[in-house]
Amino acid sequence: MIFSSDNWAGAHPAIAESLVTHAAGYASAYGTSELDRTVEKKFSEIFEKDVAVFFVGTGTAANALALSSANRAGGIAFCHREAHVNVDECGAPSFFSHGARLCPVGGERGRMDPAKLEAGIRRFPKENVHGGQPMAVTLTQATESGTVYPLDQIESIGSVATAHELPLHMDGARFANALVSLGTTPAEMTWKRGVDLLSFGGTKNGCWCAEALVLFDRSRAQQMHFLRKRSAQLFSKSRFVAAQFDAYLTGDLWLDLARQANAMARRLADGITASAESRLAWTPDANEVFVVLKREAASRLREQGALFYDWDVPHDLEGSLADNEGLYRLVTSFATRAEDVDRFVAAC
Amino acid sequence: MIFSSDNWAGAHPAIAESLVTHAAGYASAYGTSELDRTVEKKFSEIFEKDVAVFFVGTGTAANALALSSANRAGGIAFCHREAHVNVDECGAPSFFSHGARLCPVGGERGRMDPAKLEAGIRRFPKENVHGGQPMAVTLTQATESGTVYPLDQIESIGSVATAHELPLHMDGARFANALVSLGTTPAEMTWKRGVDLLSFGGTKNGCWCAEALVLFDRSRAQQMHFLRKRSAQLFSKSRFVAAQFDAYLTGDLWLDLARQANAMARRLADGITASAESRLAWTPDANEVFVVLKREAASRLREQGALFYDWDVPHDLEGSLADNEGLYRLVTSFATRAEDVDRFVAAC
Amino acid sequence: MIFSSDNWAGAHPAIAESLVTHAAGYASAYGTSELDRTVEKKFSEIFEKDVAVFFVGTGTAANALALSSANRAGGIAFCHREAHVNVDECGAPSFFSHGARLCPVGGERGRMDPAKLEAGIRRFPKENVHGGQPMAVTLTQATESGTVYPLDQIESIGSVATAHELPLHMDGARFANALVSLGTTPAEMTWKRGVDLLSFGGTKNGCWCAEALVLFDRSRAQQMHFLRKRSAQLFSKSRFVAAQFDAYLTGDLWLDLARQANAMARRLADGITASAESRLAWTPDANEVFVVLKREAASRLREQGALFYDWDVPHDLEGSLADNEGLYRLVTSFATRAEDVDRFVAAC
Amino acid sequence: MIFSSDNWAGAHPAIAESLVTHAAGYASAYGTSELDRTVEKKFSEIFEKDVAVFFVGTGTAANALALSSANRAGGIAFCHREAHVNVDECGAPSFFSHGARLCPVGGERGRMDPAKLEAGIRRFPKENVHGGQPMAVTLTQATESGTVYPLDQIESIGSVATAHELPLHMDGARFANALVSLGTTPAEMTWKRGVDLLSFGGTKNGCWCAEALVLFDRSRAQQMHFLRKRSAQLFSKSRFVAAQFDAYLTGDLWLDLARQANAMARRLADGITASAESRLAWTPDANEVFVVLKREAASRLREQGALFYDWDVPHDLEGSLADNEGLYRLVTSFATRAEDVDRFVAAC
Repeated sequence: MIFSSDNWAGAHPAIAESLVTHAAGYASAYGTSELDRTVEKKFSEIFEKDVAVFFVGTGTAANALALSSANRAGGIAFCHREAHVNVDECGAPSFFSHGARLCPVGGERGRMDPAKLEAGIRRFPKENVHGGQPMAVTLTQATESGTVYPLDQIESIGSVATAHELPLHMDGARFANALVSLGTTPAEMTWKRGVDLLSFGGTKNGCWCAEALVLFDRSRAQQMHFLRKRSAQLFSKSRFVAAQFDAYLTGDLWLDLARQANAMARRLADGITASAESRLAWTPDANEVFVVLKREAASRLREQGALFYDWDVPHDLEGSLADNEGLYRLVTSFATRAEDVDRFVAAC
Repeated sequence: MIFSSDNWAGAHPAIAESLVTHAAGYASAYGTSELDRTVEKKFSEIFEKDVAVFFVGTGTAANALALSSANRAGGIAFCHREAHVNVDECGAPSFFSHGARLCPVGGERGRMDPAKLEAGIRRFPKENVHGGQPMAVTLTQATESGTVYPLDQIESIGSVATAHELPLHMDGARFANALVSLGTTPAEMTWKRGVDLLSFGGTKNGCWCAEALVLFDRSRAQQMHFLRKRSAQLFSKSRFVAAQFDAYLTGDLWLDLARQANAMARRLADGITASAESRLAWTPDANEVFVVLKREAASRLREQGALFYDWDVPHDLEGSLADNEGLYRLVTSFATRAEDVDRFVAAC
Repeated sequence: MIFSSDNWAGAHPAIAESLVTHAAGYASAYGTSELDRTVEKKFSEIFEKDVAVFFVGTGTAANALALSSANRAGGIAFCHREAHVNVDECGAPSFFSHGARLCPVGGERGRMDPAKLEAGIRRFPKENVHGGQPMAVTLTQATESGTVYPLDQIESIGSVATAHELPLHMDGARFANALVSLGTTPAEMTWKRGVDLLSFGGTKNGCWCAEALVLFDRSRAQQMHFLRKRSAQLFSKSRFVAAQFDAYLTGDLWLDLARQANAMARRLADGITASAESRLAWTPDANEVFVVLKREAASRLREQGALFYDWDVPHDLEGSLADNEGLYRLVTSFATRAEDVDRFVAAC
Repeated sequence: MIFSSDNWAGAHPAIAESLVTHAAGYASAYGTSELDRTVEKKFSEIFEKDVAVFFVGTGTAANALALSSANRAGGIAFCHREAHVNVDECGAPSFFSHGARLCPVGGERGRMDPAKLEAGIRRFPKENVHGGQPMAVTLTQATESGTVYPLDQIESIGSVATAHELPLHMDGARFANALVSLGTTPAEMTWKRGVDLLSFGGTKNGCWCAEALVLFDRSRAQQMHFLRKRSAQLFSKSRFVAAQFDAYLTGDLWLDLARQANAMARRLADGITASAESRLAWTPDANEVFVVLKREAASRLREQGALFYDWDVPHDLEGSLADNEGLYRLVTSFATRAEDVDRFVAAC
C-alpha cells in the first residue's frame, strides 16, 4: 500500500533491459551518439514536428532551464500558486534565471484561470520599471492537484501568453498521465495549443532518470546547449538516458504505463465512498488522488502499512475541512497493483 | 582503436546488473532510501572517516557545488590554468557561485606549483576590496595532463590553503586512476593531506552516471542539501546512482577497473618509441597518454580508424613542437583491450 | 500641489551647502576619507552603539545588500506583501541574493502580523529541502501604507526572527518620519527591538542621494565591503555622500525635516473631512496620506494642478470601495508648504 | 603633491554650483525630469547621434551593466589583461552577468592587440559547448596604463568584434582625457569606429558622482531600463546627476578640465629626466604617469609628502626592473597645480 509518490517505484523491466543492452561498446559522448539522435527523431515523430530535445537529470532542471531561456532582467514568470516550480523546487527557477521571480496565479484545482493570468500580467506594464517585466508563463500538466487542463483551457492560456509575447512552458512531469487522461495526441496537447517548451518527464512513469526538455521552436536550441552545460546538466554518457527513452517510447509502453497508473487512481477514487471517515476531496483526472480523512483514520491506515503524504489544503478549499480532518495525497504509478488499491479501500 | 575519452565507454556488466537488481520494488525518494544509506556508509569505510555523500549528475555539478559551498562575494578560487573547472565547464563554477572567478595558477604538467599558488593568493590581500577575496583552492587528481600529484605536493597545497583559511577541493573525476597509480589509500590521498571536499567520479571508470560530492567535514552538509536541490541535482530515484556505486565499490571492482585503464595507458606509452613520426609528450601517470605526432601521421592513424583528440599545447611546452607536429591525447578506459593498443602502436 | 512623492523634492539648502563646502581639496577615495570616518562616528552616537556604516546609491541597494548578506541557497526572506522590496524593486533583492525569494506575509495597513510571520516561517521546516530555507525577515518603517510599527510590534517581530535564528532587517527609507512619529530614539526603534541591519534613508527627507546601510553587528562588516563593491555601489568620491549626511545629522536637521513632512501630512489628513466625494482611507502615521476619492473628483483635482498617484487597493481593503471610487496616495515632504496643503483641501 | 588618483580631487566649482542651482523646486523622479531630458539631448549633440543615456552611480556599474546587456550563458567577454573590469571591480561584471567570465587578452601598454583578440575569440568555437561562448569585447580608453588607443586600433578591434557579431564596449572612465589627447571628436572615437556601448565617466574629471552608460543603438535601451533598476542603480533624484553633467558638458568645461589634467601629466613626464634614481616607465598619453624609482627614492618622496601608489609591473615589462626598483603610478587631475608637479620634480 505504497502511495507516497510515483517516484518511489523503480524502473520498468523493459527500460532496465534497454540499459543493459546498451551497456557495452563505445559511443560518442555529451549527447552526440547515434542513439541520442535516434531518440531525438522518435520525439519528432511523436510530436509530429521537428523538435529539439535536451536530456537533463531532473524535472526541476528541465523546468528551470526552460524558464531561464526566457530570462529577462527583473523577469516574472506566471504559474499557478501551487505549481511545482513555485513550491517544490527550492528556488531553482529563480536561481537559474538570476533572480527572476515567479508570480502565482489563482485558479481551481491547480489550474490557472486564464482571466486571472491576464490580470496578473497586466499588473506589470512595460513602462513601470519598478515592478519588473513578464518573461514567461508556465503550466503543469497534469497539475499538482491531480487534475488535467482540458485542451481549450491550454489554448486560452496560450492565447494570453501570445498576446503578451510570452513563451508558454508546460511542466510535463506527468505528461503521459495527462495525455491518456484526455485521450489526445502529444501535438494536440502542446504546440498546437501554443506551448513553446515542454518538460517531458519519464522518471515518474517507469524510468530511472529520464527527463527531456523539448523545444518546439528549434531556433531556441543554440542557446539551450550552453544553458544546459553551464548548469552542469549535460551528461557525458548521455546515451544512458537515451536508452531509457528508447524503450519507453517504443510501442505504446509509455502510454500503457500511464494508463495503468491512472486506472489504479480511478479504482482508488471509486473505492473511497463518502463516509463519516473519509471522502474524495475532488475527482482525480490522472494518477493522484486527494482524500479527506479523519486524522485518526489516517493514523490507523498508516499503522496498517499504508504510505501517503499529508497535503496542504489548497487556497480554494480553505475552511472546508473539519478540525479533526486532514487532506491526504495518494499517488499511484505504473507499478501499483489492484490488490494494493483494494487493500487500502478495504482498510478505509 | 577508440581513445577519444574514457566517457565513450559504456557501463561495466556488474554495474549494469546492479541496476537491474534494484529496478523492482519501492524505495523512498530523494536520497533517503536504505540503499542510499548503505552506500554512504561504504564511502565512510573506504575513506576511514564519517563522510557526507551527495550524489549528483555530472562531475561538473560536483565541482561547481563544491566551489559554491565556499562562495564569497567577489570570491576567487585558485586552480591550475588547465584545470577542467577552468577550461571545460562552460563557466559552471562561476554560475553556481554567482560570479565568483577562477584564478589560474601555473605549474608543470597540469599540477599547481604550491609556491605559485601562495603568490597567487597573496595578490588578493584582505584590505583590497577592488580585487576580490580568495575563497577556495581546487586541484585535479589525476590532472587533465594525465599526471598525478604525489602525496607531498597535495600536502603542500593543503598547507597553503590552510594558512589562508581556504577550503581545499579535489576534482576526482579520475580519482581511482590516480589512487592506483600512487598505490595509496583514499584517506591518505585526501583528508589526511588537507582535502576538505572531493568530487568522486565513477562515470569515467565504468559507471553510467555516478558522481558523488564527498564532504570530509559533515558540518558542511546542511547547506549542501539546499545547494544541491537549488541547482536541480537532487535525483528523485536517487537509488539508481546508489545502485551503481554499490557494485562499483564492492570488492575491488573500482580499483581493478582503474588498474586496467592505467595498464593500457602504460602499454600505449611503452609502445610509442620515439621516432621522426611520433614521441611521447611526457610520461603518463594514469590513463591519459599525450603524444606528439607529425600531423600527417595523425591523419593516417585516423584513416585507419583510430579516434583521439587534438590537444592544445600547454603553456609550459609552447614552442617545443615543430610546425608540422601536433599534440594529441589518447585516453584508455576499463574497456580498453590490449589488442586495440597494440593495433594502434603497430599503426604508429 | 505636488504630492507625487517625497523624492520629487530637491535638496535642503544646508545639505546643498555642505556639498559646496566639501567640494575643494583632496580626500582619500572609496569611503576612507576623514569625513567618511567623522560621519560614521556620528551614526554611532545617534544609535548609541558602535555601528558599521556603508554608503550606497539607492534605498533599493541598501535593502538588497542587507538581504544578500543573509543569503542562503534556496533562501527565503519574509516581508509584508506590500513591502517596497516585494513590489517596487524590480527583483533586486532576488538578483543580489542569486535567486533567493521573498515570501509575502499579511498584516493590516502595511505592517506584518507577527503571528502570520511565525506561521509563514514554519511552512519551511529545516528538513524539507524542496521548499527552501528561511534566511531573513525584513520590515518597513514607516510602511508603504504610511503607517508606523509601534515599538512592541517591532519587538514581537524581532522575537520571531530571533527564535528562528534569522537576522531582522529594517527598510528605513522613511526612518526619520517614523522616528518622530513615535517620538522615540533611533536605538529604541532598532537594535533594542531586535533589528540587525538598517537601511537608513536620507534621500526622501532632504538629501540628494544619501543612503546608508547600518550594521548593528560589526562582525558583518568584513563581508559587506565585498558585497557592496561587487554590486558596484562603492562610490569613489564617497565623501559627497558623507558631506550630505554630515549636514543632515547636524543639530536636529534630519528630525526637523521629518517633523515638517509629517505635520503637513497631518494637516492634509485633518483637512479631508469625510464627504460623498472624498474620505481618508486610514489615519496616517507619517508623511503619506491615502484617500478614497470619487474618480471624477480625482480628475478634477488633477486638472487644478494637483499631482498624486493612483494606488492599488491593499488586500485587506478589497471590496470596500465603490465602483466609481479610487484609492490615491499623497506624499508630503520637508519641502511641502502649508499653502499647498490648504489649496488641495480647499479644492477637495 | 597628491598624485594618488584623480578621484581624490573634489568637484569643480561650476559643477558644485549647478547642484545648488537645481536644489530647489520639484522634479519628477527616476530619470524622467526635464533636466534629465535636456542632458540626454546634450549627449546626442556631442556624439552627433541619437543616443540613449543611463545615469548610474559608479564606473563599475556602467561597465558591468554594459557587459550584462550582452550576456549569454557561459558567456565570455574579452578585455585587456590589465583592464579595470578584470582587476579592479571585485568581479562585478561576472556578478551582473550571472557568472559570465572575462578572458584576458595581451597587448602592449594596456592596449589589446587586435590579432591576439582574434586568436582569443577563435579559441571558443560555436560548437564547443564546454568552453563557453563569446559575448562581448571591451576596451578601456584611456587605458589603465595611461596610454590611449589610436583611432585605427579602435577600428581594428571593432572589426574583429563585428566579424564575430560581438558588441564592442568602451570603458571611458577617462574618456575626456583620451579625447583631448587624440584631438578628435566623441563620434570619431566611438560609434564611427565600431563602439556600441560606452561608459562615459565624469567623476574622475571634476564631478562628484556622474557616470553615464551611453547606448549608440537605442534598441538596447528597453532592456537596459530593467537591468539598471534591478541592479539598484536607478537614482530617484536622478536630476542631481543630470545637474552635474549639465555644467560639465556646457561650453568646453569637460574638455578644458581634461586638458589641464593631461598637461600636468606631460609636465610631470617632461620633468622626470632619466637618472640613476628615476625614469619614465613609458610615455604617458593622458593623465597617468608611470615611473620607475629606486625604492628608497620612492620612500624619500613619500616622506616629503608625495602621495602615489605602487603599481604591479605589467606582463610585458616583467624582468625589466632592477631588484631595488619599483614601478609607481602618478595621476594628475583637473585640480592638479603646476606648483605641485614642479615640487615633485624638484624632489625627484
